[in-house]
Amino acid sequence: MKRISILVVAAIAVCAIALIAFAASGANDEAAPVFGIKSPPGFRDWKLISVAHEAGNNNDLRAVLGNDIAIKAFREGTLPLPDGAIITRLAWTYTPSEENNKVFGREQSFVAGAPTNVQFMVKDSKKYAETGGWGFAQFKDGKPDPKADLNTCFPCHVPVKERDYVYTKYAPTP
Amino acid sequence: MKRISILVVAAIAVCAIALIAFAASGANDEAAPVFGIKSPPGFRDWKLISVAHEAGNNNDLRAVLGNDIAIKAFREGTLPLPDGAIITRLAWTYTPSEENNKVFGREQSFVAGAPTNVQFMVKDSKKYAETGGWGFAQFKDGKPDPKADLNTCFPCHVPVKERDYVYTKYAPTP
Repeated sequence: MKRISILVVAAIAVCAIALIAFAASGANDEAAPVFGIKSPPGFRDWKLISVAHEAGNNNDLRAVLGNDIAIKAFREGTLPLPDGAIITRLAWTYTPSEENNKVFGREQSFVAGAPTNVQFMVKDSKKYAETGGWGFAQFKDGKPDPKADLNTCFPCHVPVKERDYVYTKYAPTP
Repeated sequence: MKRISILVVAAIAVCAIALIAFAASGANDEAAPVFGIKSPPGFRDWKLISVAHEAGNNNDLRAVLGNDIAIKAFREGTLPLPDGAIITRLAWTYTPSEENNKVFGREQSFVAGAPTNVQFMVKDSKKYAETGGWGFAQFKDGKPDPKADLNTCFPCHVPVKERDYVYTKYAPTP
């Protein structure tokens, strides 16, 4: 009887681990609509292209990172960016830092607060030929963001067609 | 006579290359005062810790990056940070983007303009025991920035002693 109990407990434990693994994997494997893009693994480790602040409705601080193909193209000024390049924009709420302001003695410091969402531009000149070779996606907590209307992405990038539809410029090393 | 000319030209070419190499090397090898820190190679490739905007006299946009030891410690919440950890803060002028504002239809977009300077915090609990285990440095274009008074760094970091003298918090992945 004791042996059966141990087996049942072991089986439940295995199932629980399997379920956790499935949930974690499911969160990252769900493709965003329209362009069918999945959240690329390891993007939080990618190298920095630049930083920005959007006021207005966005009211965020953002970092723009690139995978190795994108970074190489940015640094060498390669246009259009080659297939396989992925650019990601991570954003956080634009949050005043009381702690920092105390040290500076004035209201001047704004830091990254709660994460808002992450966007991707994925270059595939054949697959996304109708949108300048770029596919667009937006995720939050690893899942496609239902708030994002991805059909509106490309038209907004057309004004910078001469820079291969990319607004962000590479920030020079200080 | 022709052979001598060729030799002279070759010698000049060798000297020119040597001078270029010396200049490039010299720019990266010069240690900043007070803590004797040299600009760490490859820091522009380090992973992102967070982003911020300082208004006031700084008026910049900044990215805080870490070497692998620092990033691991931030992600695992290790305090104090281990020896070998290096944190770098890169800054650029806080620059309105007319190009972006046109698309948004309002004045809301601020991007990284000209690079201002780069700062480093280098953890060595023995070498920098008198300043909480941290050495401080500031560079511009690879050379120690003569404008920086590095003796003022540590006192400003004392208020966050409980976070091992580091103001920046790790920005969660959106």
